[in-house]
Amino acid sequence: MPKATQDKSDQIGGAAMEGGGFYNRHSAMQAAGISLLLDDWEAAVRSTVLGEGPIVIADYGSSQGRNSMAPMRIAIDEFRARACAERPIQIVHTDLPSNDFAALFTALNDDPASYMAGANNVFASAIGRSYFAPILPPKSVNLAWNTWTLHWISGPVIVARDHAFPGFSQDPSVVEAVEKRQREDLTDFLKSRSYELKPGARLLSASVGRSQGTTGWNWIGDAFWGSIEDLGREGLLSREERTAMTVPVNARTEDQLRAPFGSTGHYEGLKLLKAEVLTVPDNTWATYLANGNAQQLGTSHANMVRAFSGPTIANALSGRADTAQILDQLYARLAARLAVAPQLHEGKLAVIVVEKS
Amino acid sequence: MPKATQDKSDQIGGAAMEGGGFYNRHSAMQAAGISLLLDDWEAAVRSTVLGEGPIVIADYGSSQGRNSMAPMRIAIDEFRARACAERPIQIVHTDLPSNDFAALFTALNDDPASYMAGANNVFASAIGRSYFAPILPPKSVNLAWNTWTLHWISGPVIVARDHAFPGFSQDPSVVEAVEKRQREDLTDFLKSRSYELKPGARLLSASVGRSQGTTGWNWIGDAFWGSIEDLGREGLLSREERTAMTVPVNARTEDQLRAPFGSTGHYEGLKLLKAEVLTVPDNTWATYLANGNAQQLGTSHANMVRAFSGPTIANALSGRADTAQILDQLYARLAARLAVAPQLHEGKLAVIVVEKS
Repeated sequence: MPKATQDKSDQIGGAAMEGGGFYNRHSAMQAAGISLLLDDWEAAVRSTVLGEGPIVIADYGSSQGRNSMAPMRIAIDEFRARACAERPIQIVHTDLPSNDFAALFTALNDDPASYMAGANNVFASAIGRSYFAPILPPKSVNLAWNTWTLHWISGPVIVARDHAFPGFSQDPSVVEAVEKRQREDLTDFLKSRSYELKPGARLLSASVGRSQGTTGWNWIGDAFWGSIEDLGREGLLSREERTAMTVPVNARTEDQLRAPFGSTGHYEGLKLLKAEVLTVPDNTWATYLANGNAQQLGTSHANMVRAFSGPTIANALSGRADTAQILDQLYARLAARLAVAPQLHEGKLAVIVVEKS
Repeated sequence: MPKATQDKSDQIGGAAMEGGGFYNRHSAMQAAGISLLLDDWEAAVRSTVLGEGPIVIADYGSSQGRNSMAPMRIAIDEFRARACAERPIQIVHTDLPSNDFAALFTALNDDPASYMAGANNVFASAIGRSYFAPILPPKSVNLAWNTWTLHWISGPVIVARDHAFPGFSQDPSVVEAVEKRQREDLTDFLKSRSYELKPGARLLSASVGRSQGTTGWNWIGDAFWGSIEDLGREGLLSREERTAMTVPVNARTEDQLRAPFGSTGHYEGLKLLKAEVLTVPDNTWATYLANGNAQQLGTSHANMVRAFSGPTIANALSGRADTAQILDQLYARLAARLAVAPQLHEGKLAVIVVEKS
């Protein structure tokens, strides 16, 4: 379950994504999800009132930037067609302080897919601060994008003793605690964005979802926890370490997305235009059907899991000298477990589109 | 000679500062220089026209942020006293893409000395892009700060075979090449800032200077090159590696600062209010006089040199597996050489203050 823990209490639950560009290289699943959003994004872009002064696009929870390039380019092209060539367009990427911003800026400057390539009067910047409070001036944002972050739970860690993903715990008190925190996170996020958005501005937010009783993550999630348990049985991880390996993420249902808006469809100056849970196509499965390479499928999913969970796992090892080796072993084990009997992995994407009144 | 290489050609001459917060911990000399600037800075702050909308303060070449906290706080306090409490103040820190922005944002969020501590309606952000071209929208900056960066030379490396600091080379063609590049850097920097500053906005810029024929760096600079040569004699560094250990920095004289402005005192819409070269007090020397600990003095200077030159040295080793050990040995050697016969190290600071017409 992809992307950065957002922290509102200075007690960091998880951590940023795997650094050194690793997340950028292993986020194809996230990219597949984003492709589902482009119609809604284009509608939001078209509806944007440009007004006067610089046009500001916020990318909340950017991680290392790769998955933001295409949507930002779409917005830039549209705004450039509607506004004069000299009109400045500012793109503000936000993430946790510990995010790998050097990878973000390097990609912006050097990646051929960067929206900065060939762009004129486009100005990129970053903010390293939790988005559960306002982090941009009031009424300063014309358009906002937020993908694959809001399933990360803020605040002190909620520990599950029986799974790496707390929502999969058999302990009802764990699931309850996670869902309560998630409700507060969503309202804190919406209130903060309402402060920052200009009147008429839209925000598209998409994160890990659940529909028809499933997140689509059972197979990979159980294999991940099974791999952690394997290393425990082999004496490589203590019980305490395994318990600390709770990745602070959880999925939302459509009802949970809609809850803050109640029956009126309005919340804190925001109007709900859309709430739905989509199914993300599994490109890894398509590749496997074509080449029959189960090991490649396992490694691909294991890298994807490592990209978002690696820092949490490393953190649970609290400074052990063999941290790097343990991580390598754990994700190799996960790859092997997944390769034994490949399955379709169709995650769900919980999407909302809101407009500032 | 402190702080980040700024690159305008995609061929990075040096690199960013030493990461992981090392630069933040070993930049006391830079802090001493900054304290000399506070009168000019306060005058610039008082002269700032606040106008309408968010007040934008740019910190060009922020590195990991520690030395920006006090000047930003001064500006925030003054602006908050003059504008209403709700008026947003935006602080934009810029540096090279490879800068340790996570350390910057972590300091902003957690350091008790952070200007964000207790601040309301103050919004910090960062830009990872060379400042030798415009990186902010036109006429968007109310006040600008730039310290300890402009002695870093842009573009392809200029190699000195006989010193770590190219300005100290006995080869006149090296010195000439460095000075030519520096002239272009200064005009590129000024033109870009002129584009970004609002009318009436001031920029204070201070970097390594030279006056009365000296930069004040001969003792440490020669000991640094001597340490590199020592490791060469011991077979630890090849000739090629030693030659690549040219830190792309150089000092400017007052005449060189004034040159772009000619006899009119104006250049590209900027009016020169001040150009001077100051002498930076040596706090390390004061400590040594008090405690007589020569090893501590040597280590303190060696860490200071490492904070700005470490990435260049590591880069010259191009991937050698023992890079970390070689760096440890080199700077230990430098510390030992400096401890043999401690001297006063009074660097020079080349200062300009300009105002946008």
